[in-house]
Amino acid sequence: MKAYRYKENPLVTPADVKPHRPDFEVIGAFNAGIATYNDEILMLLRVAERPISEDPNVVKAPMLNPVTQELEIRELSRHDAAYDFSDPRVIRNRHSQASFEYLTSISYIRIARSKDGHHFTIDDQPFVFPSTELEIFGIEDPRVTQIDDVYYIYFSAVSPVGIGESMVSTRDFQSVTHHGMIFGPDNKDVLIFPEKINGKYYALHRPTTKSAGKPEMWIAESDNLQYWGNHRHLLALRSGMWDSGRIGGGAVPFRTEKGWLELYHGATEEHRYCMGAVLLDLDDPSKVIARSHSPILEPEAEYERNGFFGDVVFSCGVVVRDGVVRMYYGVADTSMACVELQLEDIMNTLEYV
Amino acid sequence: MKAYRYKENPLVTPADVKPHRPDFEVIGAFNAGIATYNDEILMLLRVAERPISEDPNVVKAPMLNPVTQELEIRELSRHDAAYDFSDPRVIRNRHSQASFEYLTSISYIRIARSKDGHHFTIDDQPFVFPSTELEIFGIEDPRVTQIDDVYYIYFSAVSPVGIGESMVSTRDFQSVTHHGMIFGPDNKDVLIFPEKINGKYYALHRPTTKSAGKPEMWIAESDNLQYWGNHRHLLALRSGMWDSGRIGGGAVPFRTEKGWLELYHGATEEHRYCMGAVLLDLDDPSKVIARSHSPILEPEAEYERNGFFGDVVFSCGVVVRDGVVRMYYGVADTSMACVELQLEDIMNTLEYV
Repeated sequence: MKAYRYKENPLVTPADVKPHRPDFEVIGAFNAGIATYNDEILMLLRVAERPISEDPNVVKAPMLNPVTQELEIRELSRHDAAYDFSDPRVIRNRHSQASFEYLTSISYIRIARSKDGHHFTIDDQPFVFPSTELEIFGIEDPRVTQIDDVYYIYFSAVSPVGIGESMVSTRDFQSVTHHGMIFGPDNKDVLIFPEKINGKYYALHRPTTKSAGKPEMWIAESDNLQYWGNHRHLLALRSGMWDSGRIGGGAVPFRTEKGWLELYHGATEEHRYCMGAVLLDLDDPSKVIARSHSPILEPEAEYERNGFFGDVVFSCGVVVRDGVVRMYYGVADTSMACVELQLEDIMNTLEYV
Repeated sequence: MKAYRYKENPLVTPADVKPHRPDFEVIGAFNAGIATYNDEILMLLRVAERPISEDPNVVKAPMLNPVTQELEIRELSRHDAAYDFSDPRVIRNRHSQASFEYLTSISYIRIARSKDGHHFTIDDQPFVFPSTELEIFGIEDPRVTQIDDVYYIYFSAVSPVGIGESMVSTRDFQSVTHHGMIFGPDNKDVLIFPEKINGKYYALHRPTTKSAGKPEMWIAESDNLQYWGNHRHLLALRSGMWDSGRIGGGAVPFRTEKGWLELYHGATEEHRYCMGAVLLDLDDPSKVIARSHSPILEPEAEYERNGFFGDVVFSCGVVVRDGVVRMYYGVADTSMACVELQLEDIMNTLEYV
């Protein structure tokens, strides 16, 4: 299918973002939630920063002290045999089964604003910064669902007790109201539908399970967006395909004539992240109607293949107008890009089940 | 502290329960939720049954077919190198990180009834049997919270996609209404408080996380018992103590003058399960006031030490009257027992934080 990648790509890079304090450096400005507000397109960037380290033998792990509301920095020796530093994103304790003990960076949300969708101006200050004991290691991968004039912004809250999904809301992208953790750990990739369906709100979510099961998509319902239940398994991995290793919701689902269209990410066991589509029943989004056999976008451009964590395209939001889907997406866990896809082309990738 | 174990212990054993079909055998009648109804004490037993195997080289794994609503039996060779049969409860796939691929038994809920709390008569038929695709491997460890004249019964729902917590309700212990999965995977040991506190329902829950964190207790809130949010971490493991390996809610919390008293289970890394107590603020149960330094009950009796999975005392419910706590509890993943404890003695184990 035809994918028009913007010639300005990448639209935002870490070099465009001033660190929030001088002893930190920005290593990522990616996986942004997307909103339209006052005739502007807003990227709610996930900005990842790390403490500058002069000594290559010292690995610094930043974390919030929720009591003082200050960041603290743990210093580890790269030669400490207790730790595994092989994944650039995390520090694993070799004596623990957990996926990580520390992160090498801390993420927060910052806004980039654009009139034309191509050229973005980045706010000087963070918009939402980690503030609670459930956000000690940061907040990641925001998505934005607009319902009437309220924007609900939800993101992975990462801390030593696990990864859950927390939510804030705003009307003006200046002041925010905190709603706490809406999906307990381990969970990420939550996507809230933009309207009630038969009297209920719905959300996709992606538990990471330890007992049994795989990183697959679930659906839940709510009557107030804060409390969720009736959890059901929705979409499974597909062995041997582009979404064989892990899947999760991507962009906020949007209404089409044929169903709710969800653009989701799928990765192989080798961590190559593509975007694909799944079509859900308009009246009952727990029913899967169709699903992309091939991806709608694969990491092919240089900025998608190389970066902090390469071979990743990862969308958290789209702008849909007149049959054109502008899909904003994070590339290589580093920067932001945009691609225009024809809605009709996306629909043509779908295989009906 | 003084613990009066009933002389009739164990009160219910697998031998007392007729299997639900002739080619199965009952291997557990344990971890019962407790309710008082029409002047009777009801045990909502977790009954575990397995297909009878004549051949010691064949391991049979039972599971529900949710389409036909029939049980099916997978047969595995005990010599199949792909599987690990060392834990009698589960069958692990050596090529998977998951805790299990199959269970060796399937659990459901059956009622035992008593006028005196010592002698129980067991219903002929199952009360709640696995019925959905989220219950393929069974339903386990029910708890019962009575609110007005409705009894809410919730339990671990076990399937190939993970372990979550599902709920039904009843007024008469005959017909039930299904409310779906109230806590998504991985989660178990949910305990719903028996009344609203400052306008909200509260529940304890125990996520099992993979990314970071340990098997610890969380608290959530709701306004309708079906949808839950505002998840917060409540209680951590204590290194070197009786609750160093895993903890989870046990009995339904009950009101005392000094706070909500929750009798919870804690296990060491070596899987020795004891019961202890935690006291939560009456007006805000997310505040921990005090916690047992020593257990209130340890596996000491023969029937607690030996069984399908030994060294386990595990309570899912109590009856509290006149300062006496009758704690019903599962022993060794096999049978049910009861112990009487003085409320005052339990309070004296608490260390204020």
